[in-house]
Amino acid sequence: MRTEPPGLPPVINFDRKSAKPLYRQLYEGYRKLIVERQLHARQRLPSTRSLAAELQVSRITILNAFEQLRAEGYLEGRIGSGTYVARSLPDDLLTPTRRIAFRKPPDRPSPRLIARRVQILRPEKAEPWLKDSGVFHIGQPPLDRFPVQVWSRLVVRHSRNPDVGILHYGDTMGLASLREAIAEYLRTARAVRCDAKQIMIVSGSQQGLALAAHVLLDPGSPVWVEDPGYFGARHALNLAGARLIPVPVDDEGLDVSAGADRCSRPRAIFVTPSHQFPLGMTMSASRRLQLLDYARRCGSWIIEDDYDSEYRYGNLPIASLQGMDLESRVVYVGTFTKILFPALRLAYIVLPTDLIQAFIEARWAMDLCPPTFPQLVLADFIGEGHFARHIRRMRLLCRERRNALVNSLRRHLDALPVLGDQAGMYLTVSLPNGIPDREICERAAEEGLRIAPLSECYLGEARRHGLILGYGGTSVEEIEAGVRTLRGVVRSCSGRRPQSSGS
Amino acid sequence: MRTEPPGLPPVINFDRKSAKPLYRQLYEGYRKLIVERQLHARQRLPSTRSLAAELQVSRITILNAFEQLRAEGYLEGRIGSGTYVARSLPDDLLTPTRRIAFRKPPDRPSPRLIARRVQILRPEKAEPWLKDSGVFHIGQPPLDRFPVQVWSRLVVRHSRNPDVGILHYGDTMGLASLREAIAEYLRTARAVRCDAKQIMIVSGSQQGLALAAHVLLDPGSPVWVEDPGYFGARHALNLAGARLIPVPVDDEGLDVSAGADRCSRPRAIFVTPSHQFPLGMTMSASRRLQLLDYARRCGSWIIEDDYDSEYRYGNLPIASLQGMDLESRVVYVGTFTKILFPALRLAYIVLPTDLIQAFIEARWAMDLCPPTFPQLVLADFIGEGHFARHIRRMRLLCRERRNALVNSLRRHLDALPVLGDQAGMYLTVSLPNGIPDREICERAAEEGLRIAPLSECYLGEARRHGLILGYGGTSVEEIEAGVRTLRGVVRSCSGRRPQSSGS
Repeated sequence: MRTEPPGLPPVINFDRKSAKPLYRQLYEGYRKLIVERQLHARQRLPSTRSLAAELQVSRITILNAFEQLRAEGYLEGRIGSGTYVARSLPDDLLTPTRRIAFRKPPDRPSPRLIARRVQILRPEKAEPWLKDSGVFHIGQPPLDRFPVQVWSRLVVRHSRNPDVGILHYGDTMGLASLREAIAEYLRTARAVRCDAKQIMIVSGSQQGLALAAHVLLDPGSPVWVEDPGYFGARHALNLAGARLIPVPVDDEGLDVSAGADRCSRPRAIFVTPSHQFPLGMTMSASRRLQLLDYARRCGSWIIEDDYDSEYRYGNLPIASLQGMDLESRVVYVGTFTKILFPALRLAYIVLPTDLIQAFIEARWAMDLCPPTFPQLVLADFIGEGHFARHIRRMRLLCRERRNALVNSLRRHLDALPVLGDQAGMYLTVSLPNGIPDREICERAAEEGLRIAPLSECYLGEARRHGLILGYGGTSVEEIEAGVRTLRGVVRSCSGRRPQSSGS
Repeated sequence: MRTEPPGLPPVINFDRKSAKPLYRQLYEGYRKLIVERQLHARQRLPSTRSLAAELQVSRITILNAFEQLRAEGYLEGRIGSGTYVARSLPDDLLTPTRRIAFRKPPDRPSPRLIARRVQILRPEKAEPWLKDSGVFHIGQPPLDRFPVQVWSRLVVRHSRNPDVGILHYGDTMGLASLREAIAEYLRTARAVRCDAKQIMIVSGSQQGLALAAHVLLDPGSPVWVEDPGYFGARHALNLAGARLIPVPVDDEGLDVSAGADRCSRPRAIFVTPSHQFPLGMTMSASRRLQLLDYARRCGSWIIEDDYDSEYRYGNLPIASLQGMDLESRVVYVGTFTKILFPALRLAYIVLPTDLIQAFIEARWAMDLCPPTFPQLVLADFIGEGHFARHIRRMRLLCRERRNALVNSLRRHLDALPVLGDQAGMYLTVSLPNGIPDREICERAAEEGLRIAPLSECYLGEARRHGLILGYGGTSVEEIEAGVRTLRGVVRSCSGRRPQSSGS
């Protein structure tokens, strides 16, 4: 075995004032020299004695560092007979390692390939109107009225002397008591046909959509999506590699006939029947039955995203599509994000009984199970009646804000039709042809408004332009001022003064 | 327009003692009759007056119910001129709806197709040794020593008068203060080269693996996995549709040469270099350099799962592979599950800088962002020194349990070699040929033990049989009793008494 004579000791920068022990500094210094190939295989190191003298540290320090380096395989040899950089280290980056034959070492590093699905996701980046929060932000519920004190009391209750059992992994489906509470709420308030065992707790409706996409759709499987439609659903479906088929919506919701023309056998159909995103109509009863019939004939699944149905200002809340489905083809997605608060990250999906096991497998692969603690708090929040009370309050508050917005729009921008104001926490203002919504929204963002352009919600060609205004998290005063600002932006972008009765 | 004369009023079951208002019961009853096609399109309903008399309810009740049904499109017609089931409802399930031509209505419902990836996940169901908790359960950290009081104090601190801002959606990458704290910890304790901006907070290492799989791998992309290896990683990779290439491990860890023989250009390589799961060896320095060289030449990514490196009983903790990587090819996955508690669902990944945006896109599609509240608590737990203190205590405790287990095994089953006891919270006992580990583990589960069979960790042919015993969540007393029980099971399964010095 050929080894090399010791050279000059390599330079290790010691920081004698550092909290880091000297042996640790020495260990890290030598490791770095070896990793970066400044010391090479079989190179002999100076004796611990001479190194100690050279570096003016105790010999114990050197011995400790070398011992660790030996344990990790960087050094070999015994004290007394010399210490060497390990023989087995690949000599340098260009020498092929044992048994691995390369056709030709590349001159430059190989390209850094990532998955195509991420390339598809990429164009839909966070836009100025989705960033932060602000007036008319679409994803902002009325957080200023959240009963923080009540919530905190429940948090404190569960953090004092908790049972050690709750520290373990939870059930993949979620906490039983929360699932019971949700099932009861859904049966009563949303006419969902379900049992607690069909409820899976997820971290936001986005995870519900991603799970459904992964369980129901193979790469390339066709899925109908409403067009215009919800970008979050498109992201989830793209993540699973599905083939998205944009299907137009009309006044009654998803146009089933048009969908059949485009792709007659979708594996799944994504819909927002209670309050279509972003145009806001409710899917009519006949269209619902037509959709269910069609799904039955084609063996399609339906993903029903019921993201804001708690907020309904006309009659009763519209009953869910899931409750009309006699064949268990609907995966129903609901969330606490809009009615409680987004940072909670709790939502739920209602599963056809024969899909429960498949969803458990996929959830296990995706993130095992939801966190236990917030579920305990939420179960009590619902069970003790705070949730029902809060919904009633929020409904009144959002109705007030909705009315303020509709009235402000009538005063300042009355030429522009308002769509979808019967439910939810946003409405959409339709723009006449030739006024570009994206430009208005970008300029409005500079003025601090967060208004989303309708045209961005199209997967196919944008057939309408419009402005999506969230009012859930915007006060009545902000609404009036915001609409005045918006009027100025619309005027400057449209190059003419829109017909207006208010000024 | 042809309509039908009113028939007998359909039977609606009223529950006059129910808390549900009568109009609501009537609404739901009629809706059900229409959805289930017991009333058909154009069928005329009795007048509200006669129905009120018939049902002995006020006419207002009937009017309210019909108004809602009209709003949802189930009914049409005006008060006074008769009320009808809406004309546009599809008549019955077998009549093709407008413009939708079916080749032939199927006689039986179409098959309920789900994604193939779930079929692949399916065989790896939860086995008896993974269910619940129990003696030797592999995923169970020492929860009995978790500083619940300290944690609760921090929870209470953050729940009193919280800033409304924390109720909003959080940053997709996670809370800045927590990411800073983790980056500092990783630089110091794990020799990870990183900045807080490279840290993404995830809900458990499983989500970290699933995200990495989705960002790095296309459907069909080859990925090397250690064989035997971690089933959770396989689940995550299968969820993304990757093609798994099992690569054997030897005493130095993943056998890079063997991998090159099987598949010379993997898109990614999954490794557990600090403590190989489940055999427990540490990847040698030369193998690490060989792996990094190989990845550089092939343009492969490396996913380093550093799941339990806090628990190290020999020298210093082994430095991470990520820290040796001069080319930013390593995605490093670490977790708080093993050192704090599993129900917390917090872990982190360290990303190459040029992948940050891609991971944000994928995270946005998968579940938007982590919940804010537990991150605030954990950031304080680390920042105030509780985390470092807890690690030191856990290390001592687990060392004590490890020693107890090694000693018990030596006394009662000393013919069986122990692997991987220098780190982590589990070790593996190797079985001689011909003793089936699965049978032992199933019988042990009947005795209340949770021991996982080594052979189940193979993706290819199981070349070794053995028993994986977790000791993190098992007390010294339970360990001694558990090993005695295990001895009985091993004896009965092997049909002979294993060589033993203890009895």
